[in-house]
Amino acid sequence: MTMHTITPAPQAPVVPGRGRLRPLGLGDVRITGGFWGDRQAINGSHTLEHIGSRLESEGWLPNFDRAAAGRLPAGRRGREFSDSEIYKYLEGLAWEIGRTDDAALEERFRGIVARVAAAQEDDGYLNTMFGRPGQGARWSDLEWGHELYCLGHLFQAAVARERTRPGADDGLLGIARRAADLVCATFGPDGRDAVCGHAEVEVGLAELSRVTGDRRYLAQARIFVERHGRGTLRDIEWGRKYFQDDIAVRDAKALRGHAVRANYLASGAVDVAVDTGDGELLKALRKQWDRTIARRTYITGGQGSHHQDEAFGDDWELPPDRAYSETCAGIGSIMFSWRLLLAGADARHADLIERTLFNVVATSPAPDGRSFYYANTLHQRVPGVPADPDGTSPRASSSLRAPWFEVSCCPPNLARTLASLESYVATADSDGIQLHQYAPATVATTLDDGRPVSFEVDTQYPADGRVVVTHTSDASAPWTLSLRVPAWASGATLRIVTADFVQQRSVDPGMVEIRHAFRAGDVVQLDLPMAPRVSVPDARIDAVRGCVAVERGPEVLALESVDLAPAGVDDVACVAMAAGTEPVERDGRVWITVSRLPVDDARWPYGEPPADRGAATAEVPLVPYHEWAERGPSTMRVWIPQQG
Amino acid sequence: MTMHTITPAPQAPVVPGRGRLRPLGLGDVRITGGFWGDRQAINGSHTLEHIGSRLESEGWLPNFDRAAAGRLPAGRRGREFSDSEIYKYLEGLAWEIGRTDDAALEERFRGIVARVAAAQEDDGYLNTMFGRPGQGARWSDLEWGHELYCLGHLFQAAVARERTRPGADDGLLGIARRAADLVCATFGPDGRDAVCGHAEVEVGLAELSRVTGDRRYLAQARIFVERHGRGTLRDIEWGRKYFQDDIAVRDAKALRGHAVRANYLASGAVDVAVDTGDGELLKALRKQWDRTIARRTYITGGQGSHHQDEAFGDDWELPPDRAYSETCAGIGSIMFSWRLLLAGADARHADLIERTLFNVVATSPAPDGRSFYYANTLHQRVPGVPADPDGTSPRASSSLRAPWFEVSCCPPNLARTLASLESYVATADSDGIQLHQYAPATVATTLDDGRPVSFEVDTQYPADGRVVVTHTSDASAPWTLSLRVPAWASGATLRIVTADFVQQRSVDPGMVEIRHAFRAGDVVQLDLPMAPRVSVPDARIDAVRGCVAVERGPEVLALESVDLAPAGVDDVACVAMAAGTEPVERDGRVWITVSRLPVDDARWPYGEPPADRGAATAEVPLVPYHEWAERGPSTMRVWIPQQG
Repeated sequence: MTMHTITPAPQAPVVPGRGRLRPLGLGDVRITGGFWGDRQAINGSHTLEHIGSRLESEGWLPNFDRAAAGRLPAGRRGREFSDSEIYKYLEGLAWEIGRTDDAALEERFRGIVARVAAAQEDDGYLNTMFGRPGQGARWSDLEWGHELYCLGHLFQAAVARERTRPGADDGLLGIARRAADLVCATFGPDGRDAVCGHAEVEVGLAELSRVTGDRRYLAQARIFVERHGRGTLRDIEWGRKYFQDDIAVRDAKALRGHAVRANYLASGAVDVAVDTGDGELLKALRKQWDRTIARRTYITGGQGSHHQDEAFGDDWELPPDRAYSETCAGIGSIMFSWRLLLAGADARHADLIERTLFNVVATSPAPDGRSFYYANTLHQRVPGVPADPDGTSPRASSSLRAPWFEVSCCPPNLARTLASLESYVATADSDGIQLHQYAPATVATTLDDGRPVSFEVDTQYPADGRVVVTHTSDASAPWTLSLRVPAWASGATLRIVTADFVQQRSVDPGMVEIRHAFRAGDVVQLDLPMAPRVSVPDARIDAVRGCVAVERGPEVLALESVDLAPAGVDDVACVAMAAGTEPVERDGRVWITVSRLPVDDARWPYGEPPADRGAATAEVPLVPYHEWAERGPSTMRVWIPQQG
Repeated sequence: MTMHTITPAPQAPVVPGRGRLRPLGLGDVRITGGFWGDRQAINGSHTLEHIGSRLESEGWLPNFDRAAAGRLPAGRRGREFSDSEIYKYLEGLAWEIGRTDDAALEERFRGIVARVAAAQEDDGYLNTMFGRPGQGARWSDLEWGHELYCLGHLFQAAVARERTRPGADDGLLGIARRAADLVCATFGPDGRDAVCGHAEVEVGLAELSRVTGDRRYLAQARIFVERHGRGTLRDIEWGRKYFQDDIAVRDAKALRGHAVRANYLASGAVDVAVDTGDGELLKALRKQWDRTIARRTYITGGQGSHHQDEAFGDDWELPPDRAYSETCAGIGSIMFSWRLLLAGADARHADLIERTLFNVVATSPAPDGRSFYYANTLHQRVPGVPADPDGTSPRASSSLRAPWFEVSCCPPNLARTLASLESYVATADSDGIQLHQYAPATVATTLDDGRPVSFEVDTQYPADGRVVVTHTSDASAPWTLSLRVPAWASGATLRIVTADFVQQRSVDPGMVEIRHAFRAGDVVQLDLPMAPRVSVPDARIDAVRGCVAVERGPEVLALESVDLAPAGVDDVACVAMAAGTEPVERDGRVWITVSRLPVDDARWPYGEPPADRGAATAEVPLVPYHEWAERGPSTMRVWIPQQG
C-alpha cells in the first residue's frame, strides 16, 4: 500500500494514511446535475430542512437545551440514541455547507453546535440520556445505551466540519476531542474492558485520529475493534452475534448479526487495519466482504434478512418479502466497501457501491425528499397505508415512505451520504485518476507528483449508457485515467478522440486504463450496454428459486401492481414471466410478457399440481425499483416467477 | 345444528350445547398405546413432573405464595403472564388424573390449588403481577398485561377438573367463578369497554358457562368477542391486527396478527356463535378458516410466518426458514378446527387436526418429554447449539429443543393437549359414532337414543395404514360408524367382515359411513395408502417455488444433514431432488435421489446461470419431520429443490 501525504486533506469523510487509492473530496469533484445532482439538490433544499424541523418538534434537539439547563431527565424525548441524529444532521450540514457555502445553513450549523456545546459536561461527557440523577449511570447499559455510538457520530460530524472548514471557530472539533479524551481515559488499555452494543465509535475515533493527528484515538479504535467477540456484552435473545460480540473481528467468516452494526464495525476495522498496517486483519475483512456479498446480500445491494433483529440471515437466507434491507445498512455497506476500495483498488467494491446507491440509497427518499423508507422490501404483497405527513411512524417496515420514525436513524444518514456523494466519485493514485461512479461532474485535482489535471464528465447515466470525459487541462507527460466498467457491462466499448488519433475498442468489466498525455479537448467516451438483462439467482438462494429479476444498467427493475391492471391482471401474486420471452425496451420503459398463474383457493395448497398451468399472456411495463410506490399504494415484486 | 343434552357431560375440554357432532371424552375413549399412547405416557410420567419442577424452581408458582403472604412485588419472578403456566399445568394435571386416577398427581393438584386459592383477593381478583402497592394497577395494561388471558386459562383448568372430577372439594371451580364474576362486573355491558391484548378469556368464559350453566359467562365471552376490532387497544409497531383489534371478528377475511391470539379468539368466537345460535358469525369463522388454510398455513399445519411478532404473514407468505410455527399456535389451530368440526362435521377440520398433531404437536417435545421446540422451523441452515438441560433459553427460535424458556407457554400447553388427546379421537351424533383420529383405542359410549355401543381400534398407524375396528357390543338396530378417510388417502379401501357377509370396496377421502346393526366380533377394516407422496406447493407460495415435499401418510418428511454425509454430500443447501426420480420405501425408510447443486462462491450471486447444472446423484433417506434433530445438531429441510 502506498503512503499518502496529502495537503490539504481532501474534503471527504474517509482519508486513510495509506492505501492503493487516495480519495478525492468536495474540493476536487463537483457533481453538476443528473440523477445524483438532482437528488443532492433535493437533499440540500428539502431534506435537511425537514430533518432540522423534526429534530426540533420531536424534542430531540431540545434535549440538549434541557441538559444545559439542568432540567433532565424531566421531559426528555426520544429513544436512547436520539442524540446521534443531531450529530448525523450536523455532519450532513457540514458537507452541504462545504458543497454550497450556504450562509443560512452555516448559521443553522453554528446554532446547533452551540446548543450541543452547552450540554457537554466539564469532563467531556456528552449524552442527554445518562448520568444525571434519575437517569441510568454513565456507561451502565453498554448493550442498549448507545452512548459510545452517539459519540462516534459526533466525531464524524466534527471530522466533516474540520475537513470542509479547517480551523473553524464553531468549537465542534473541541467538543469532539474532549469527549474522545474521556472515552480514551475510560475505555483505554487500563480502563474498562468493554465495547458499545452498537459499533460506530470505532470509525469515528479512527477518523478523528486522522484529522487531528492524535494517535491515541486510533489506538482506542483498535482496542474497541479487538475487544469485539469476547463476550463482554450480555447474551440476548438473538445471541451476542447481534452486537458482533460472538467472534473476534479477525476470526469471523462473514458479516452477521445486526446489519448496520456489522457494517459500521467492519468499516472501523478497515480503518484500524489500514492505519496500523495490520495486513492480516485487512485480509480477513476482505474475505468477509466476499462471503457476505456472495451469500448474504440482496440483488439491490441491500443487506439484512430479518425484521426481528434487523440482522443478516444465515447464508442463502434472502427472503424478498421479509427483506429488511435497512437504508442505514445500505449506507453502512457503502462505508465498508469504500474503505476496502481505497485500500485495495478492487473494482468489485465500487460495483457494489453503485448497486447500493441506485437501489437502496435512491429508493429510500420520496421525490420530494421529505419521506423515507426505513426498510426496503423487495416484495410487497399488500398495498401500504399512506403515512401521515405530520405523523411519526411506529413502523420501520411501513410499505410506504414515512416522514419520520420513532427510530429515525435513516433520514439523517441519507442526508449526510447524499451531501458527501462527491467524495465517492473518483480517487487518485501515483499515476492518475480513477473514475468509479458516473454522474455529470467536473474533476480538478493534482496528481501525486503535483501536476494539475482536470476534466468534465458528461452523461445521462443511467438513462443512457454513454459517459463522455472531456479533458480540460494539458498534461506534458502521460498519466492514467481509469474508468470502471461494471461487472454487468459485458460488451462495453471505449472510444478515445485526441488531436492525434481516434481509437475504439471493446473493454471488459473491471478497471479500464487509458494512459496518455491528455490535452484539453481530448475525449474519452465509454459506452455501457443498457439493454435490459434477465438475472437468475444462485441456485442456493431458496426464497427466489424459479424466479428471475430484470435489470437495466445499475438499476434493478420491479413489477408494480399499478402497471398490471390495464393488462388484465391486478395481483403481482398471480403472474409469471411467460416461458421463453425476453424483456424489451419501448417508449422509454422495459416491458415483459407475463402469464397468469393458476389460482384455486378452495383447496389445501399442497399436493398434486393443478392441471391449469397458466395461459393468457399480457405485456406489462416495469419500473426502476427505486421508483416503486411513487404512484400511490401498490403491490410490487422484484423477483418474477418463471412460467413452467 | 342438533341440540345436545348430555348427562353426564363428556370428560372433554369442549362441550358445546349444540352442533352436528357431540364430543366423546376421557370416559368414552381410551388410547391404549401406539404413537400417541407412547407420547401420553411420556407426558404423564416425565413432562408433567418436569414442568412442575420448573414452575417451582423458576419461582412462578412461589409467586402465589408471596402474594398470599403479602410479600409482592418484592421477589416476583417471571414475565407478566407466568400465572397462566400454572393454570395450564393444573389443566394438564386434571386431564391426566382423569385418565389415570394417579394419587400422587391428585395430591400435587390439590396442593397447587390451595396455593392459588390463598393468593386470590376477597373480590375475586387473582394475578400476581398487578394491583399491589409497587405494581401496576389492575387492568392498567390491557395490551401487554395478560390479566384476562391468565384468567381464561384458570377457567379452562377449572372446567377440566369439574368435567373429570365433578363436585370435587378442592375449590378450584369456586376460585374460577369468583374471578369470572369479577370479570363480568368489571367488563360487562355497563362496565369498562375493553378487551385483553391476548385472547383466551373468551374460550375460558364460554366453557365455564357450559360447565356451570351460568349464562352470564357466555354473555361476557360474547361481549369480548364483539369488542375486538374496535381499536380499544393502543396501536403498536405491528398494528392492532397483532391483537385482532383491527377488524371485527365477523368482518375479517382470514386469521391475522399474532397466531396464538388469533386462534384462541377464533375458538372463543365459535363457542359464542354456537351457544348463542349466531349462524352469521359461525359462517364468517368457517370462511376465515378456509382462507387461512388455503393461504397462510404450512404443510405441517403450522401457522405463523413471522418471528418478529409471532404472527401470520400476508397471503402466500410462508417462508420455511423463518417459519415461526409456534407450538402454541398449532395447539390453538387444533382448538379452532375442533370447534368447527363439532359444529359442522366437515372432515377437512379433522384432516388439519391430524396434520397438526403429527407435524407440530409431535415435533415439539423431545423423546424424553423434557425439552421442547417453541418455534417449529421447516428449514434449518445452521446446526443448533444444544440447550443446557438445567438452563432457561432466552431464544424461542432455538434450533434445538430446550428444557425451558423465558416465555414458556409451550410446554404446559403441550402437556394439557396430550393429556386430553382422547377427547379429539371420536364424536357421536344422533345416528352413530365418528372416528376422526386413528390410534389403538377402546371406545365405549351410548348413542343419543341411549343404546350402548363399544368397539376396539387396532392399528400401527402411522407406521402402517391399516386400521381395524372390532365391535365389542351387540346392536339390535343399525347405527352408523363413520371413519375419516384423509384428503391425501386416494385409493383407500374398506373391508367389512360380519358373521353374515364380507364386503370390500374402495372409498374416497371424506367421511365413509357404514350403517349396520353391528354385533360383537364384527370387523371394519380401513386400509389407507401409505406410499410416499410428492407434494407440490401452490404456485403462489413464493418461498418454496421450485421445491417439492415428501409426505407419507399424515407425516411430513424431512431431509436432515446427518443422513447426507454418507452419500457424499454434507449440506442440505447443496442438494436437489434429481429430475424425474420418485421417492421409494426401503428398510422402513423413505429414500430420495438427490443431485448436487452447482456451487460458486467467488461470484456475485445474481446474473447468468452457471453452466454446471448439477450432476452426480446419490440416494438419501428422509426422516419424519417430527423426529428431526433427535440425533444431535443438524441442518434440515422439508422443501427440497427440484433439479432443472
